[in-house]
Amino acid sequence: MSRKSPQNPLFDAQPFNRYPQWLLNKLRPQAISLIQRVHAWVETECIPAEQIMKAQVAQSRWETPELMRQLRQKAKSQGLWNLFLPDHFKESPGLTNLEYSCCAEIMGRTYWAAQTMNCHAPETGNIELLAKYCNDAQKKKWLKPLMDGDFSSAYSMTEPDRASSDATNIACRATREGDEYVINGRKLYGNVKWNADMKVYILMACSDPENPDPWRRHTMLLVPSDSKGLTMKRNLTIMGYDHAPEGHGEYVYENVRVPKENVILGEGRAFEIAQGRLGPGRIHHCMRLIGQCERAYELALLRCKDPRKLPRGKYIGDFDSNIERLATMRLEIDAMRLVVLNAADTMDSLGNKAGRYVIAQSKILVPEMAAKIVDECMQLYGGQGLTQHTPLPEIWTYARFVRVADGPDAAHRHQVGRDQLKGFETTRKRHLAYADKARELRKHWAFSGELEDGEFAWDYIPPSGPKL
Amino acid sequence: MSRKSPQNPLFDAQPFNRYPQWLLNKLRPQAISLIQRVHAWVETECIPAEQIMKAQVAQSRWETPELMRQLRQKAKSQGLWNLFLPDHFKESPGLTNLEYSCCAEIMGRTYWAAQTMNCHAPETGNIELLAKYCNDAQKKKWLKPLMDGDFSSAYSMTEPDRASSDATNIACRATREGDEYVINGRKLYGNVKWNADMKVYILMACSDPENPDPWRRHTMLLVPSDSKGLTMKRNLTIMGYDHAPEGHGEYVYENVRVPKENVILGEGRAFEIAQGRLGPGRIHHCMRLIGQCERAYELALLRCKDPRKLPRGKYIGDFDSNIERLATMRLEIDAMRLVVLNAADTMDSLGNKAGRYVIAQSKILVPEMAAKIVDECMQLYGGQGLTQHTPLPEIWTYARFVRVADGPDAAHRHQVGRDQLKGFETTRKRHLAYADKARELRKHWAFSGELEDGEFAWDYIPPSGPKL
Amino acid sequence: MSRKSPQNPLFDAQPFNRYPQWLLNKLRPQAISLIQRVHAWVETECIPAEQIMKAQVAQSRWETPELMRQLRQKAKSQGLWNLFLPDHFKESPGLTNLEYSCCAEIMGRTYWAAQTMNCHAPETGNIELLAKYCNDAQKKKWLKPLMDGDFSSAYSMTEPDRASSDATNIACRATREGDEYVINGRKLYGNVKWNADMKVYILMACSDPENPDPWRRHTMLLVPSDSKGLTMKRNLTIMGYDHAPEGHGEYVYENVRVPKENVILGEGRAFEIAQGRLGPGRIHHCMRLIGQCERAYELALLRCKDPRKLPRGKYIGDFDSNIERLATMRLEIDAMRLVVLNAADTMDSLGNKAGRYVIAQSKILVPEMAAKIVDECMQLYGGQGLTQHTPLPEIWTYARFVRVADGPDAAHRHQVGRDQLKGFETTRKRHLAYADKARELRKHWAFSGELEDGEFAWDYIPPSGPKL
Amino acid sequence: MSRKSPQNPLFDAQPFNRYPQWLLNKLRPQAISLIQRVHAWVETECIPAEQIMKAQVAQSRWETPELMRQLRQKAKSQGLWNLFLPDHFKESPGLTNLEYSCCAEIMGRTYWAAQTMNCHAPETGNIELLAKYCNDAQKKKWLKPLMDGDFSSAYSMTEPDRASSDATNIACRATREGDEYVINGRKLYGNVKWNADMKVYILMACSDPENPDPWRRHTMLLVPSDSKGLTMKRNLTIMGYDHAPEGHGEYVYENVRVPKENVILGEGRAFEIAQGRLGPGRIHHCMRLIGQCERAYELALLRCKDPRKLPRGKYIGDFDSNIERLATMRLEIDAMRLVVLNAADTMDSLGNKAGRYVIAQSKILVPEMAAKIVDECMQLYGGQGLTQHTPLPEIWTYARFVRVADGPDAAHRHQVGRDQLKGFETTRKRHLAYADKARELRKHWAFSGELEDGEFAWDYIPPSGPKL
Repeated sequence: MSRKSPQNPLFDAQPFNRYPQWLLNKLRPQAISLIQRVHAWVETECIPAEQIMKAQVAQSRWETPELMRQLRQKAKSQGLWNLFLPDHFKESPGLTNLEYSCCAEIMGRTYWAAQTMNCHAPETGNIELLAKYCNDAQKKKWLKPLMDGDFSSAYSMTEPDRASSDATNIACRATREGDEYVINGRKLYGNVKWNADMKVYILMACSDPENPDPWRRHTMLLVPSDSKGLTMKRNLTIMGYDHAPEGHGEYVYENVRVPKENVILGEGRAFEIAQGRLGPGRIHHCMRLIGQCERAYELALLRCKDPRKLPRGKYIGDFDSNIERLATMRLEIDAMRLVVLNAADTMDSLGNKAGRYVIAQSKILVPEMAAKIVDECMQLYGGQGLTQHTPLPEIWTYARFVRVADGPDAAHRHQVGRDQLKGFETTRKRHLAYADKARELRKHWAFSGELEDGEFAWDYIPPSGPKL
Repeated sequence: MSRKSPQNPLFDAQPFNRYPQWLLNKLRPQAISLIQRVHAWVETECIPAEQIMKAQVAQSRWETPELMRQLRQKAKSQGLWNLFLPDHFKESPGLTNLEYSCCAEIMGRTYWAAQTMNCHAPETGNIELLAKYCNDAQKKKWLKPLMDGDFSSAYSMTEPDRASSDATNIACRATREGDEYVINGRKLYGNVKWNADMKVYILMACSDPENPDPWRRHTMLLVPSDSKGLTMKRNLTIMGYDHAPEGHGEYVYENVRVPKENVILGEGRAFEIAQGRLGPGRIHHCMRLIGQCERAYELALLRCKDPRKLPRGKYIGDFDSNIERLATMRLEIDAMRLVVLNAADTMDSLGNKAGRYVIAQSKILVPEMAAKIVDECMQLYGGQGLTQHTPLPEIWTYARFVRVADGPDAAHRHQVGRDQLKGFETTRKRHLAYADKARELRKHWAFSGELEDGEFAWDYIPPSGPKL
Repeated sequence: MSRKSPQNPLFDAQPFNRYPQWLLNKLRPQAISLIQRVHAWVETECIPAEQIMKAQVAQSRWETPELMRQLRQKAKSQGLWNLFLPDHFKESPGLTNLEYSCCAEIMGRTYWAAQTMNCHAPETGNIELLAKYCNDAQKKKWLKPLMDGDFSSAYSMTEPDRASSDATNIACRATREGDEYVINGRKLYGNVKWNADMKVYILMACSDPENPDPWRRHTMLLVPSDSKGLTMKRNLTIMGYDHAPEGHGEYVYENVRVPKENVILGEGRAFEIAQGRLGPGRIHHCMRLIGQCERAYELALLRCKDPRKLPRGKYIGDFDSNIERLATMRLEIDAMRLVVLNAADTMDSLGNKAGRYVIAQSKILVPEMAAKIVDECMQLYGGQGLTQHTPLPEIWTYARFVRVADGPDAAHRHQVGRDQLKGFETTRKRHLAYADKARELRKHWAFSGELEDGEFAWDYIPPSGPKL
Repeated sequence: MSRKSPQNPLFDAQPFNRYPQWLLNKLRPQAISLIQRVHAWVETECIPAEQIMKAQVAQSRWETPELMRQLRQKAKSQGLWNLFLPDHFKESPGLTNLEYSCCAEIMGRTYWAAQTMNCHAPETGNIELLAKYCNDAQKKKWLKPLMDGDFSSAYSMTEPDRASSDATNIACRATREGDEYVINGRKLYGNVKWNADMKVYILMACSDPENPDPWRRHTMLLVPSDSKGLTMKRNLTIMGYDHAPEGHGEYVYENVRVPKENVILGEGRAFEIAQGRLGPGRIHHCMRLIGQCERAYELALLRCKDPRKLPRGKYIGDFDSNIERLATMRLEIDAMRLVVLNAADTMDSLGNKAGRYVIAQSKILVPEMAAKIVDECMQLYGGQGLTQHTPLPEIWTYARFVRVADGPDAAHRHQVGRDQLKGFETTRKRHLAYADKARELRKHWAFSGELEDGEFAWDYIPPSGPKL
């Protein structure tokens, strides 16, 4: 099949030149333009400012830096704001999941770039949740300012003493007393309340522990961060990083009281709410990770031709072992991208629910591979690779973090594996049909009994077995 | 982004149900119909006949079995013939690379199914080559019967004593004497001449060893298999398998004479010819491998719920370690498929040449992962997994073979890695721009000199270095 | 610590030069001499005869080749016979497990060398079993000729339709009728009876299925290979290899009758017998595998400096990626050897039973790593690596086979893992003691309550939990 | 081989119960006693104090904490001091490398325990170096206080802009001017001078760049930390950790002047000195890493039976996937220990120089495997595994750091691989001898020419080739 028509020359350049053809053909003009603007924004406003951002955070650890405030203001004024919003929002820029994925990869190049455009976790998930499930009064009070970027929110589900990968285990109690709920329990993660911009927690708590239906026992509540009795025990570091100025907190709820108006959707309906939350967020995480990998890969390339580093008189990139490493990393990053883009495209075509498998595929494969690739990039830098001389340690930590965020790989693998096993009976029937037809053929060809050469028969097809 | 429209219900079933949405949207009606017919053909005519085929081969090791002859006749009469042909052939069914890839995966479910449809290696590559480079007389004599399936051909390039991954090393000599070429040398692979259907070798030989341009030293010649002086030393087994009745031969050319009419394209033009040959064939190999993996995966599923195998009283598939294995294999097979399909789609959009990188991506990633996955399937069968009780050992061997066919992974990785290094200067400039902008920002924010917190600077950007 | 005394110069040469120092210091003079003789035997009588052996087997597939008969005669006459026998045999050469391991590695260099010295599986295990559990009459009839090498035996346990990794599942029935047992069932593996030297099966069968103690239901019986009703359905190939002239059989027992005198030890005592069989045999397998790896490694080295193979004008071994591969393989082979030698030494010190863990360690780690290493060696040979041009495919297959022989890795891993979990309570107590002491220290240093910096506490120590 | 004698019951308990038998048999009574005392020390004085130590460091980041001072005082008074000293020191406790390795593993359980006994890097290496190469005046001034623990030292070799894995690249200049050397350059690593106890740098600098012998160009100098012109640019973090209060520094030397008396051994003799330094230190690092792995493994065990974490109602350790993980980690930790202990034993028997290969084996295999194992342990803890709730992130970081300390794996692999290639000719001769003997056998058995079955010949033995 020879080339039918020349490609749009635009697509030979950053950020389009690593996208698959099938994607390029689906990009609408307005999306192309928006992707270009996001690209320009990250290239000129974000990456070069990384050190300023760090320095400002260093000066005042738990305060949103002035640089971030200014960038958010500027991005918002340019329409680079809330790009992730699905098109049923009137504020949505109308990007498909696939188109937004391209933006997310670009944002991933520096980990805080998404925040400049109000496209960062956990806000994206929280905004979608509030929009979908809150009543008008709640929306006005909580959703509007989040979308405007006036304050920030946290999602509070995981607990220290529970296997939270199965959320029915969640134990933090919310007990109705008159017009209030009284909350007691401990929570992990959720952005730190030391940051004054953090105003509200979306809390999952157990309100009806005796309900025979375990999926109706929990309630989702809005808890203001200045609630009495809500204390933050410590900042949770991730591989030693405090991730200031947002960070992750460890919280104690001790007789925290919130009015019943703060219940989302209704008592006992937390799982209804939680279910819809995770799909797109996981894809965004994965695309940002790919952006991080591309950044790490560029650093690997730079090291490979660094004339200051000439072990045994050769460029590091002249050693064919490193040439192989560069190749492997490139091939794997690009394969990961195909996986995530396919997930986004599937969600666009069939909806988030039908996309469950492809989302899980991204969630399981991408972070593990990303951590491995960035580790390899660090290794190319030798001892320096682990120091703050490059952003690689922070990138690695982000990849490692995404691997456990929303539950460890194993939990997701189990889900996929169990779904596969449901295909057993269909597979068995398919093979039984082979065997039936094979018996006919044997008669036709007059082979009787055992085939001569001891070749494989159909004995591997199991009989029907009992449920154990 | 919610589901816009329900999917064609056809696509929820075999063979379409594992294809990505973006592909489904590209399939034209006639392609859908053809894919369905190939699917039905393989399901009912090929897989159930596997044991008959083996038994017939066992009876007469190097003869094309009667079953194969009948199936080819039947497939041809039904129009399931030469499906791989690009649309510039008048005999082409007009499939895009992407559409044909779907067929190739299905054919891969049993390794000889492709042959029933004259879509097997090395014929596909040979037919494309002869069609592209032969003159009319040659086409009539050699191409026509190959396309009609009247005889078969071999491609003869690799040599025992040369590093053939760099084809300029090829040493077999073809010396012009009058109107003939006299050929002397040794060759590996190429189907065995013990099979009487094997009529012609497409031979790459060195005709002009002194030519200063190493890419002009070699000539491609058509060598009839009954040429005097051409002897087959032995059948080359692959991991012990003789792969009868086609197999792989080890050949000696001793003063073999062919008329100058048998030169393809012209003396010294072998590399021009060779270059175009490999792309699509590699994709076909990879898609067939994915079909093989799906077959192996089904066997794994069957084992997992086999009531005859209940270690410690549980189904093998009730052990969560195996549930994780099933998940991992499924995720990786599907990721591989995305890689190969993207390669096919890229070739459709931009041509084979522009597809070089994506073809290499498939060639490197797929066979290695496939061998690993099939090995895991075998392991689920314990000791039985290595015996002829299942087709798994043959599937594994095919995957392992594809990994070295057309050169070992390392050679392909080097090519990709070297191409990546060419991006060094662009990358460097991009990062220099970051650093320039960062200097401005520093002034703007009045940070002077060393940033406070010892954060990373741009020192990792190398200066321009000498060529070594 | 500087070198105290020069090493015995003997130890700088084959076969001693890769042994760890602690082993060399334990080798007794007579063992050194025997190891040297085994080395010389394999170097001059076995490896150079590999092709003759193959050719003789090819001529008469299921007959012990004349070369093998002569070599066995010669080895026996030189005292290189039954070297594996533990020293409680009067025929034992008196080697420790450690010393014999050195011999086994050497024998492993060509897979049939052990047989020339009557040190091959399954004879070694069978001889030990018969010696330990047979009465005098049985010993005279079956053990004596086995030790003399007059005929060969098979061990028959695994079944096609059972999860044999848990032997209590074994279903083949042996029913007492008068003075005989009547046997019905199917068995996998066990050398093929097509070889006329194969005279007796050591069969594990279920004699008392209703016994409440599952470990008392099975009986071990001696079944002559010419018993009526015993048929061999087919030779079981291993990855396509028939492993002639011994091979592996698939057997049907149909009303096979053996006299009650053929019961070993007593009815219902099969597990008592089976238990003692596997330890040393697994170590022998692993050491032979290491010998095979060394052989494969030598081939890799030869390829690396082959002047006939100069891709891009360099030796394969001049590519630093291959230098790294050579290093990795070398390091891993040597690490494996340390693992197996430690197992042998532990058995010498503490007995086979106490060696269970170290034996499992060898069984799990060595075959998997060996298969990986040999695969890498094959890959260095490119396409040729999979053909019969080198012994590598057969070596790989042997390693892959050992991985599933005696049950798949997973079964052994589970055993080890469960044993580890038994250490939970000890570990918990240890950490509780840390926490107790830490509380004291906190008082002493006047740190109260929460430590300042949010450092880790001892919360990870779990409370005591219920048995689930 | 049955058990000859019962094991010393002492050896069934911590810390001896994971040591191989061959080691136990070599431990002398005084070593056993010392190992026990180190064990008790770490169990009761160090691990329980981990949080106090952290809290004190947090209060005064770059000051040696009071707790450390007290522990050092106490350990010293109990004779748990400088245990690593080889027996040619009069202060040596007389431990062999093997015996000291047991101590080092125990010390590794908490990363600063070694420091309490003055057995920590870089002091151990620096003390050995100064002891071996300094003159009496230097020893009195620098070595004595280091051995007494009065101050600490740093080793200063690596540079930011050089490929320091090849030390001949080192560029920092030391120019003789009169009775002084003037030093200019930049250095990475070396403990931070912000800690007031850090008194002296052992600096490797280039003093004679034009010397035709690259191994004679460099000089080792003692540089007091308060030298004028010596500034520390920043603390180098390792994966974000500052490793206070010792840490790693980035240094600038600007016209730093030291008297010529501070030259060690003599101008141009740096490589003589450097060579002897690394062997034992690498083994110590690796043994400490194994101690860290054991600690991490214990945490994994604790998690596996934590009743607070019951995903799907089961202990994490009841999932057989985790049982397999526990098994794999256990087997690999123990295999690593065998590798390092063998290295130590080889050094005891043959000296450090002869131990080069086994030291490299430890250096290459252990840190990579350790990082992998600790990563797996973290993963068992899910999201919490990355936080400060357990010491796992710090343990992982230490393992990752050791992987690049003293040069990345690749440099060490290259050394090993190149050494292996030196064995090519010996290997070739060995195989040529096989082929010679095979030719004789062929005649004897009257096989002529090509063997029938196409079996492998000896063609893989390469001819002698040119040096390229």
